[in-house]
Amino acid sequence: MTLVCVGSIAFDSVETPFGARERMLGGSATHFSLAASFFTEVRVVGVVGEDFRDEQFQVLEERGINTEDVERVTGEKTFFWRGRYDYDLNTAHTLETQLNVFAGFEPRLSPASTSAPTLFLGNIQPELQLRVRERAQGVRFAALDSMNLWIETARDSLVETVATVDCVLLNDAEARMLAGEPNLTRAARRIREWGPSLVVTKQGEYGAALFTDGGFFSLPGYPLEDVSDPTGAGDSFAGGFVGFLAAHRGEEQTEELLRRAMVYGSVMASFNVEAFGTERVLSLTRQEIDERFRAFKEITHFEAVPFEPPVHAAV
Amino acid sequence: MTLVCVGSIAFDSVETPFGARERMLGGSATHFSLAASFFTEVRVVGVVGEDFRDEQFQVLEERGINTEDVERVTGEKTFFWRGRYDYDLNTAHTLETQLNVFAGFEPRLSPASTSAPTLFLGNIQPELQLRVRERAQGVRFAALDSMNLWIETARDSLVETVATVDCVLLNDAEARMLAGEPNLTRAARRIREWGPSLVVTKQGEYGAALFTDGGFFSLPGYPLEDVSDPTGAGDSFAGGFVGFLAAHRGEEQTEELLRRAMVYGSVMASFNVEAFGTERVLSLTRQEIDERFRAFKEITHFEAVPFEPPVHAAV
Repeated sequence: MTLVCVGSIAFDSVETPFGARERMLGGSATHFSLAASFFTEVRVVGVVGEDFRDEQFQVLEERGINTEDVERVTGEKTFFWRGRYDYDLNTAHTLETQLNVFAGFEPRLSPASTSAPTLFLGNIQPELQLRVRERAQGVRFAALDSMNLWIETARDSLVETVATVDCVLLNDAEARMLAGEPNLTRAARRIREWGPSLVVTKQGEYGAALFTDGGFFSLPGYPLEDVSDPTGAGDSFAGGFVGFLAAHRGEEQTEELLRRAMVYGSVMASFNVEAFGTERVLSLTRQEIDERFRAFKEITHFEAVPFEPPVHAAV
Repeated sequence: MTLVCVGSIAFDSVETPFGARERMLGGSATHFSLAASFFTEVRVVGVVGEDFRDEQFQVLEERGINTEDVERVTGEKTFFWRGRYDYDLNTAHTLETQLNVFAGFEPRLSPASTSAPTLFLGNIQPELQLRVRERAQGVRFAALDSMNLWIETARDSLVETVATVDCVLLNDAEARMLAGEPNLTRAARRIREWGPSLVVTKQGEYGAALFTDGGFFSLPGYPLEDVSDPTGAGDSFAGGFVGFLAAHRGEEQTEELLRRAMVYGSVMASFNVEAFGTERVLSLTRQEIDERFRAFKEITHFEAVPFEPPVHAAV
């Protein structure tokens, strides 16, 4: 079932302790849609400049992603981000941001996009997310990502937008900040009280957690010895998670289905960080995805055998 | 099977956003042995002052803990720690430390302790840990905890001591610091190359991870809305983990057994933080422990059903 995503499409220059790359294809919509394309049909909504060429469009289209709703503005440049990570790969240091075409971005949805049943609102201004949400009349399941910038500068409109979606995905620090609550379980409960039935907290190398009416689920990060570039990990997670759910739209959205979606999100994020930019995800095979899904089962499984206390024990 | 633990026995004064307590029974050996006492016979090795009364000894002895090797020094005072936690309950702020009797602590092991098959070296000077390890001739499984203070001030003797044990338990930041390696998976591998076959990293509210020859296992923290006092959580984890393994000494130490030990460690840590000091653990019942063990299964379980990609997908 079709999944529409709106977000940034960018060129990223990234430096980490393990290397550097100039002007890679990046942005939240790019990482999201590439990950989601392994699970369902994806339509991407965004804006690019004249420097965004056929070869970049082809990267998306070769993954079956529909780019009909990507506006190309002649005479202007694509959003550009330059960042650095030190040994603490959890923290991105922004060195340069050129909004370019992104400054005046007004998402346009074709009829095929407004009627799609699943929508992902990538990390852009909450006002834009809200307008897209309102236009997307066919949506049965909408998910939203955001960031500290919007919590600090546009909290009210972010809270208003959050109330219109079914699922919020945030870093755990951002979830605490948005809810104004240092305890993560309470923070997730507060956000869910505003409307969304699901809250997913992304915890970097510590994995991710899911808060629902039915309970709580948590999954560790995949233990990698070589992490090259964490840029886009959160969007790849969202792509796996929402993409898997979009593929199962029409089925009952059970806790079990949501948990498998969490695993696929974690699988896609774990591949994303193994190489720079989109490199690893573009080379992925279905078999590798399935193998890592099984690996997540292996690293989290234990037998629920009760302990038999020795005779001496006081209790 | 008997488990011997050596560590600090203290009075703790603690303030958190949720309350304050003066001169509670605390210390690494106290929290460890109380948690372990739900699983196996425990003997505690430590030193206290004249202000440590029968009522404190009784707290331990009522849990079946043998205090024969706790030396009581007349005319001196017990180790005292005063600390504060702010809303970030992961970070303890030390306000006051009075080493008192602990300054000249020389652990003495009775014959019953030197012949015990399982040993836990709580967070004390590495030189003392090493001497205890050497004296404990009957030991078949020794585990060690440490902290940033010793990594900074006594790294060489800590590394020497680590080489003599089977299992190291550390906070994840401390494991990275000790190994000099920012990637946790690599850090654990390096520590294991020094000798221990097991490395357990404690990750506060994010749970804990186990690194072995056979692989990797990780478990989230239990989602609690009310955390009163994290003091002793790491020692309670160690008590559940090592206590469970001590109870199964003589059986084959399979990955499956180690994973269940990790769950019992997490269970004991999650109870510890629900109230101040030892309050919650002292009121625990076997039934509550078993219920939370099952709850950990519930919050981590997912079905390993493979994804069937829709027909359109490129891969």
